[in-house]
Amino acid sequence: MNIAFIGLGNMGAPMARNLIKAGHQLNLFDLNQSVLAELAQLGGRISTSPKAAAEGAELVITMLPAAAHVRSVWLGEDGVLAGIAGGVPAVDCSTIDPQTAREVAAAAARQGVAMADAPVSGGTGGAQAGTLTFMVGASAELFATLQPVLAQMGRNIVHCGEVGTGQIAKICNNLLLGISMIGVSEAMALGDALGIDTLVLAGIINSSTGRCWSSDTYNPWPGVIETAPASRGYTGGFGAELMLKDLGLATEAARQAHQPVVLGAVAQQLYQAMSLRGEGGKDFSAIVNSYRKPQ
Amino acid sequence: MNIAFIGLGNMGAPMARNLIKAGHQLNLFDLNQSVLAELAQLGGRISTSPKAAAEGAELVITMLPAAAHVRSVWLGEDGVLAGIAGGVPAVDCSTIDPQTAREVAAAAARQGVAMADAPVSGGTGGAQAGTLTFMVGASAELFATLQPVLAQMGRNIVHCGEVGTGQIAKICNNLLLGISMIGVSEAMALGDALGIDTLVLAGIINSSTGRCWSSDTYNPWPGVIETAPASRGYTGGFGAELMLKDLGLATEAARQAHQPVVLGAVAQQLYQAMSLRGEGGKDFSAIVNSYRKPQ
Amino acid sequence: MNIAFIGLGNMGAPMARNLIKAGHQLNLFDLNQSVLAELAQLGGRISTSPKAAAEGAELVITMLPAAAHVRSVWLGEDGVLAGIAGGVPAVDCSTIDPQTAREVAAAAARQGVAMADAPVSGGTGGAQAGTLTFMVGASAELFATLQPVLAQMGRNIVHCGEVGTGQIAKICNNLLLGISMIGVSEAMALGDALGIDTLVLAGIINSSTGRCWSSDTYNPWPGVIETAPASRGYTGGFGAELMLKDLGLATEAARQAHQPVVLGAVAQQLYQAMSLRGEGGKDFSAIVNSYRKPQ
Amino acid sequence: MNIAFIGLGNMGAPMARNLIKAGHQLNLFDLNQSVLAELAQLGGRISTSPKAAAEGAELVITMLPAAAHVRSVWLGEDGVLAGIAGGVPAVDCSTIDPQTAREVAAAAARQGVAMADAPVSGGTGGAQAGTLTFMVGASAELFATLQPVLAQMGRNIVHCGEVGTGQIAKICNNLLLGISMIGVSEAMALGDALGIDTLVLAGIINSSTGRCWSSDTYNPWPGVIETAPASRGYTGGFGAELMLKDLGLATEAARQAHQPVVLGAVAQQLYQAMSLRGEGGKDFSAIVNSYRKPQ
Repeated sequence: MNIAFIGLGNMGAPMARNLIKAGHQLNLFDLNQSVLAELAQLGGRISTSPKAAAEGAELVITMLPAAAHVRSVWLGEDGVLAGIAGGVPAVDCSTIDPQTAREVAAAAARQGVAMADAPVSGGTGGAQAGTLTFMVGASAELFATLQPVLAQMGRNIVHCGEVGTGQIAKICNNLLLGISMIGVSEAMALGDALGIDTLVLAGIINSSTGRCWSSDTYNPWPGVIETAPASRGYTGGFGAELMLKDLGLATEAARQAHQPVVLGAVAQQLYQAMSLRGEGGKDFSAIVNSYRKPQ
Repeated sequence: MNIAFIGLGNMGAPMARNLIKAGHQLNLFDLNQSVLAELAQLGGRISTSPKAAAEGAELVITMLPAAAHVRSVWLGEDGVLAGIAGGVPAVDCSTIDPQTAREVAAAAARQGVAMADAPVSGGTGGAQAGTLTFMVGASAELFATLQPVLAQMGRNIVHCGEVGTGQIAKICNNLLLGISMIGVSEAMALGDALGIDTLVLAGIINSSTGRCWSSDTYNPWPGVIETAPASRGYTGGFGAELMLKDLGLATEAARQAHQPVVLGAVAQQLYQAMSLRGEGGKDFSAIVNSYRKPQ
Repeated sequence: MNIAFIGLGNMGAPMARNLIKAGHQLNLFDLNQSVLAELAQLGGRISTSPKAAAEGAELVITMLPAAAHVRSVWLGEDGVLAGIAGGVPAVDCSTIDPQTAREVAAAAARQGVAMADAPVSGGTGGAQAGTLTFMVGASAELFATLQPVLAQMGRNIVHCGEVGTGQIAKICNNLLLGISMIGVSEAMALGDALGIDTLVLAGIINSSTGRCWSSDTYNPWPGVIETAPASRGYTGGFGAELMLKDLGLATEAARQAHQPVVLGAVAQQLYQAMSLRGEGGKDFSAIVNSYRKPQ
Repeated sequence: MNIAFIGLGNMGAPMARNLIKAGHQLNLFDLNQSVLAELAQLGGRISTSPKAAAEGAELVITMLPAAAHVRSVWLGEDGVLAGIAGGVPAVDCSTIDPQTAREVAAAAARQGVAMADAPVSGGTGGAQAGTLTFMVGASAELFATLQPVLAQMGRNIVHCGEVGTGQIAKICNNLLLGISMIGVSEAMALGDALGIDTLVLAGIINSSTGRCWSSDTYNPWPGVIETAPASRGYTGGFGAELMLKDLGLATEAARQAHQPVVLGAVAQQLYQAMSLRGEGGKDFSAIVNSYRKPQ
């Protein structure tokens, strides 16, 4: 298949690599020339603009840092919509606000292009291993078209509803995740301060009503889960700055929808305070250090 | 076995009933005469004071509403410690602050009585069915002694460490539970407001990093989990006033331990606001209504 | 003076009226034809676009609801910058984010137009009475030029620094105001619940370290300040929806600046919850009802 | 007048000194022998217990650290109520929860002793200078009796209502103060991050609706108010640990009264986090450092 792939950062580059490996012909665009050169060596074709990449493509995929980039790459003078043919399926894998996702898809629809939003989870590790989860907002028909290609980059391809719902699913899940991680941090640190063994406490929580992914799979207390970032100095994993970005999207979407998110807003501020103290580069579970004496 | 059982409320009465059924001889005490009469018909013996109940007992169990009752029932002039023989094992199943649990146990220890704290979870349903979880703070030896008897009232008998750790485990778990439930409420209500199907959203969360008991077993959104209180008008279950009590214990223990619990404190206030609006009698998952337009 | 005035809503119309009264010739633009007609009767001249209004004007003033309007009125094809002459002073009185204020001013500067931001406080009452406060971000020279004209619409004309600082001053002040009002509400409602006379409590606070405008001038408890909205059913005054808008600007500006605002974010959510319950049309001091039993 | 004065710590000792200077005969009790010796040199008489101090006294004053001390000093075997004569007026100046204040006063009333609560503000500086504010909960008659003596230790003697209302007034005021200080900190730090001059910002706030004692008299930003602790490294003033104590009293009283205090609870947690980082010994306005990059 002839696929345009635009946005080759930490996530996009390994995703594109997996598509090349799967035998597709890729039209590549990014501002970073060295990643383009690298992927060209694997067989990718370098394009000079999103428009050029989209011309002649049978599918367009973008993976960009934020809504402003998505608007410019799709709607700009040299953007995708200036080059894409009517009837060609399209999907944006960036994590952005649902409103922008819907607006760009509406612009695409006006020229006969069905466009999906499909933000991912799984991090750079998942992108490399091809084990990402894709949360897809698309018509049933478009989802059926995209599913096989997305499955070459990920393991779980989830249909969330019409366009925009992929973003909604992601920000709602991550809103809850950001809250849960702080909840686990408070519970573990309180238990430790009161004098219970933290391994015992985690065991009880994990077989009780406090059970959650942040406790049983990714516990922020060092030594509880050997494979979690907490057990390797909070390196790797999901950076606090990325959590901060997603909580920003969630609270801003909530504001526009006139919907309160009290704990979500507090969580955002606590990660912001963590970032201000210079800890934003660590895994987000390092928020637990806000609840411990400076070690 | 000759067991003193003091405190025969909504939880204590069915627990005592299960012990009578299991063949024990019970010395009963409570201020409520009608529950005493009822249990006497099943074979229990009515005592005139905690002291009288403890006299001659081979094991003493108490199940009381709050720390003040525990102090008075154990340490008062006519209290358990005035009647219990040295060497007799003892356990308090009330949910109270760890500090009081430790102080009362220390008073017991001074007269040769080994005492455990063993708060429960599972509610009145679990008390009746004999499926409670007991979180036990006790020496290994005392735990071994108590375990078979507690197993006649519950299904999971968890050893948490020395005396006081049962309370710590319970309040830390419930602190996290109280937070998680609000987190799920905010995520579900935000998703609904933004336009994703709530069943789809719950499904995604439950197979992703937002996964937690409050979402996959006890989801606050009506219709998501058929067996959850949300699907029967928020009746039954775990009342918001009880959650409020446990969050009060957690934040007060945190205060004494000089330990911050930011989300826990906000959660407590949100349940308090729910209670102020007259909704405290509902299941605690009705907190989701704070995030929905008045229906 | 020949002044272009664009944006004739609840605030803009009375401001324009005061300038007409002061003897200026106004070029007026708004989408609302009836307000244009009304002001034309007072001597204003109706323009067909912001561009047309700006042509020939010696000063351009805009007063618009939000940043998107400011961008379009100034930067659009038929916008102010398409019509204004180089060297003509310009001022936007809308309350928007500082970033947009700076960007639009930078665009103006590129064609030789010095532009200020000058958001106001004082409400529609102040706009009618000509007693507004203007918080002006401008060079010293531009401030000196604008000051006499602004003084025909307001009483306090405050120079806050370079362009953008007017917005910063306003959102920082209102961030604090939104927090203080909730703080006063919590203190008054707690005092009432504990049994102190609320008039006595207000008196003590107002002569002590809790003293603030939200308590001594605009107390949210009915009957404390006869002239406050609380004493007339929370009508008039500064609507909760407007406070919500300003807190949204503040938390969004904080997010962009990587600056935590914990209480500010909680305050925003509490006003949002108030709005969800259908109370957003009341004065913002009605937040106190979140702390009282339904009356 | 023959006055029993019990509790001679950082506040009590200078208060007692002022009464000696005013010509009263003092019966003194404290566990600290060196402060007793020092005050004896000024003419005070050393007593061996609260009971002994109260015997023969025409007025009893206590100034103690917390509710547990108040209970023991008044109600203990060797306590004040064991020695005081019927009809002798009594006043406790400690800052404690209103409930304990009322209970101890009720015990006093049962033996014919009218007792007031009269917590103070003004710190050790005010205690030495005799410029304290007393917030007095007492009957009108008892207030009239106490007023002249309190006036020898303070400048403002405020009648708040019946016994207990002194404590209520103090904790409600300090709840608001704790919130306002964080509100000012967030507003100043946000303004600074966005690029307004902090002196200009403080000036605008102080003449606008954000105006409050925490901004115009005790601003947390260094250099804004020359006499504030912020301008001398956050030394002196009102320690964060004391604010933490008062917020603990406020939130606990709110819990007992089933009254939500959302911002108050968050404020308490933020001061607790400040204390955890080892900053609890500084003036409470150092909370602003939670909003600044590590300097």
